[in-house]
Amino acid sequence: MTIERKRVGTRMSQIVIHGDTVYLAGQVAEDDPGAPAADQMRNILARIDGLLAEAGSDKSKLLSATIWLADIRDYDAINEVWDAWVPEGCAPARACVEAKLAFTKYIVEVGIIAAR
Amino acid sequence: MTIERKRVGTRMSQIVIHGDTVYLAGQVAEDDPGAPAADQMRNILARIDGLLAEAGSDKSKLLSATIWLADIRDYDAINEVWDAWVPEGCAPARACVEAKLAFTKYIVEVGIIAAR
Amino acid sequence: MTIERKRVGTRMSQIVIHGDTVYLAGQVAEDDPGAPAADQMRNILARIDGLLAEAGSDKSKLLSATIWLADIRDYDAINEVWDAWVPEGCAPARACVEAKLAFTKYIVEVGIIAAR
Repeated sequence: MTIERKRVGTRMSQIVIHGDTVYLAGQVAEDDPGAPAADQMRNILARIDGLLAEAGSDKSKLLSATIWLADIRDYDAINEVWDAWVPEGCAPARACVEAKLAFTKYIVEVGIIAAR
Repeated sequence: MTIERKRVGTRMSQIVIHGDTVYLAGQVAEDDPGAPAADQMRNILARIDGLLAEAGSDKSKLLSATIWLADIRDYDAINEVWDAWVPEGCAPARACVEAKLAFTKYIVEVGIIAAR
Repeated sequence: MTIERKRVGTRMSQIVIHGDTVYLAGQVAEDDPGAPAADQMRNILARIDGLLAEAGSDKSKLLSATIWLADIRDYDAINEVWDAWVPEGCAPARACVEAKLAFTKYIVEVGIIAAR
């Protein structure tokens, strides 16, 4: 199976495609640092839409999502945004836990595995 | 490759099957909230057995497991249950770390990738 | 698709190969417990090199990496080692978060999914 990488950096690639499986790097709200969790989630999901499109996929093909929250008390706030974004009948397997992230300006991070 | 989802909700699907790979949502002890870690692990593993069966798989086909403990001091307690459950010669790749979970009544969560 | 396991224990297998996808158990610095984070990362990456070789893979085929740090303030220290190790053009998708690990002598853990 082929490996295709996009938006490749020294540290990570934002997109790695192995056969029909797409791995995205953990996404943070680069366009909305310091914002409340719901806003960060909104920005992250827009970024994920863009990356999936680049990978030849879309949010109807999500397989697995891991969500890390700097403060688990943001759980309801991010879920409201998440639930509205997930297409009906296409929700991925998901886990959401609390974890301190690399930069305090980011309080939500989302890792995605999708099909294409 | 086909994508098949089972027990589909708005927020997540409990089972997502992509070709021969099965992703389960992070499982918590829904039948034993507030119980000690070993009991929660026992309930989680029973739930995983059920979900894998629905997916046409079983615990001899585990590929990867991620275990989150609200308190890492429960490590030995959950391992005793885990070790007894894993079929000889079929242990998955595994990582186990501490993370606060969404609801304090749950102190163990397990994410699984399996083959079918 | 076949499942092949190597370095199989009761609790986990260090290597699980499913078709062309390789899952490694979360690696810690077993040869350098108690060392500073950069040293632990160096030991972990050497271990990963060895495991990937056993799996018929190598670090040019990394798909996804999850890094857990006991103290996120070690972020820069481990990245310096990581960045030097990743082959140019071959960086995996990656997420790095803080999480307490099972043993305090280990302060870095790395989970890998690779192709072979």
